[in-house]
Amino acid sequence: MKKILITGFSGFVSHYFLEHLSSSKESVSILGLDLFHPQFPIDHYKDIECRFEAINLLHKEKVDNLIFQFQPQYILHLASYSSVAFSWRNPIESFRNNTNIFLNLVDTVRELGIECRLLSIGSSEEYGNVSEKSIPITEELETRPVSPYAVARVSQEMLSRVYVDGYGMDIVMTRSFNHIGPQQKELFVVPSFVKQMVEMKKRGLTRGVLHTGDVSIVRDFLDVRDVVSAYSALLLHGKRGEIYNVCSGIGRSLRQVVDLIADKLSLEIEIREDPKMIRPNDNNIVVGSNEKIKKETGWMNDIPFEKSIDDIIAHWDTIE
Amino acid sequence: MKKILITGFSGFVSHYFLEHLSSSKESVSILGLDLFHPQFPIDHYKDIECRFEAINLLHKEKVDNLIFQFQPQYILHLASYSSVAFSWRNPIESFRNNTNIFLNLVDTVRELGIECRLLSIGSSEEYGNVSEKSIPITEELETRPVSPYAVARVSQEMLSRVYVDGYGMDIVMTRSFNHIGPQQKELFVVPSFVKQMVEMKKRGLTRGVLHTGDVSIVRDFLDVRDVVSAYSALLLHGKRGEIYNVCSGIGRSLRQVVDLIADKLSLEIEIREDPKMIRPNDNNIVVGSNEKIKKETGWMNDIPFEKSIDDIIAHWDTIE
Repeated sequence: MKKILITGFSGFVSHYFLEHLSSSKESVSILGLDLFHPQFPIDHYKDIECRFEAINLLHKEKVDNLIFQFQPQYILHLASYSSVAFSWRNPIESFRNNTNIFLNLVDTVRELGIECRLLSIGSSEEYGNVSEKSIPITEELETRPVSPYAVARVSQEMLSRVYVDGYGMDIVMTRSFNHIGPQQKELFVVPSFVKQMVEMKKRGLTRGVLHTGDVSIVRDFLDVRDVVSAYSALLLHGKRGEIYNVCSGIGRSLRQVVDLIADKLSLEIEIREDPKMIRPNDNNIVVGSNEKIKKETGWMNDIPFEKSIDDIIAHWDTIE
Repeated sequence: MKKILITGFSGFVSHYFLEHLSSSKESVSILGLDLFHPQFPIDHYKDIECRFEAINLLHKEKVDNLIFQFQPQYILHLASYSSVAFSWRNPIESFRNNTNIFLNLVDTVRELGIECRLLSIGSSEEYGNVSEKSIPITEELETRPVSPYAVARVSQEMLSRVYVDGYGMDIVMTRSFNHIGPQQKELFVVPSFVKQMVEMKKRGLTRGVLHTGDVSIVRDFLDVRDVVSAYSALLLHGKRGEIYNVCSGIGRSLRQVVDLIADKLSLEIEIREDPKMIRPNDNNIVVGSNEKIKKETGWMNDIPFEKSIDDIIAHWDTIE
């Protein structure tokens, strides 16, 4: 039976990963770690034996004990304070809860001498402000982090490199682009748009005003179900020490996203950009190339953007 | 009166900086911070009013209070666990005592809104393994850190960049190459060689065996008295947000260094390389270009390598 440790277990991505594992029909034993208890039932996944421990990854001694007892063969390190906006307000806390927790984790595995493969999740934010001629972004592009969050992620990646080359550990790294999908928190831009527009619809409106940040920025959105199948492919077939973009390869402006949602809900939307919602130093256009992960692992993305939006609308439709 | 905060106050570089200030005949008020009390008298520098506080920079609240009370105009951030070897054995502690202490410091200055210039000390280790065609190394070369220590320094530099561009702070950064000078601890390679050979001499020997790491590696050594005049030049004339190599521009193999010391002491030395003393992933050749700092600040290095070696020999000569 495969033993997989998942950090950031109670977050958005984790239970989609469990669903993905459950569909593969192989028996798996999971140890999930998170600060907070998961909001989903952990015992209803077929062929998955699942245990959860509430833990702060900054408490290295506790991490040591749990990992020593569990002896994982795979580690999916999802834990992260992944908000760029939060990192501008709380750079120290953001850094500690990205880079320092990662360092605690990998160093525990090193000290205990556990032979396992670790997937270190990074971010497209690592690339920073990219000129149009570098689009779509390949993994060779130099990183130029422009926010505290992005710095923390590049630091994590540099540490991964040292743990691979200097200590011989088996780590694969991602630079993951924007995720979307049902149940993503409304802190993020797409669910925030959908939620507001679904509420207009519920109130019987046919038109409305949407307060936004800069809607000209272009992002690469990948459905969370494709994200987890990419993570699974990388755990199984990624090359040790390599970095992989996890993305759709398609760019969409936030304006296009608003238009699509409005169209599906038959709403007429007026966009009002609010200067207070525009972030310092934000990147204009972020679209990745997914050639490398496709070529080296056989992964393919399955879910069209329109289907993601339909499912997100359906999700908010069911919420009072 | 200028107010200067110095972190890592009790280390090797700091009291040379005080001597440098003392020679400039301007009145200065210093607040020195360090984990350990300084081993030099702090009240004997002319025109310098000096106060010391024992503090761990990881304790942010205490840092806050001290900085708020002192209201520095300049910060010389020397504090660092700067040993590469230590970082391989204790990567977490090394990272915290480089990157996290720096982040605590800059974020305190940001939160308190103190207008001051900060000099962030980095390291030539940030460049990693450099091919010969990139020698001498200029600041444009991409960093490729290959040790935990080097990662911590690149992280510090990336954070500096974000604090300059994102928060508008006034930070100048260095990549400082190997320092040498009297009173440097024998943990470092040159004083270690000198100390061992001076002891042979004292025992009346004319020949001896020196156990070393890899002596073919080439380094760029700058006398600590030139280092502090560079830091002073950068605090006064460095450009905000810029990175400067602090180096001599001249490469010397450790073998050449041993030969020079042996020659000065009239010793015949047999070098025995000990595999245990050879570090994983060490850089072969590290020689910097100091064109940028010379051009932009008017700094010049003054002290020839032979004079440094003479002074280091004289230092160990006086120690029983």
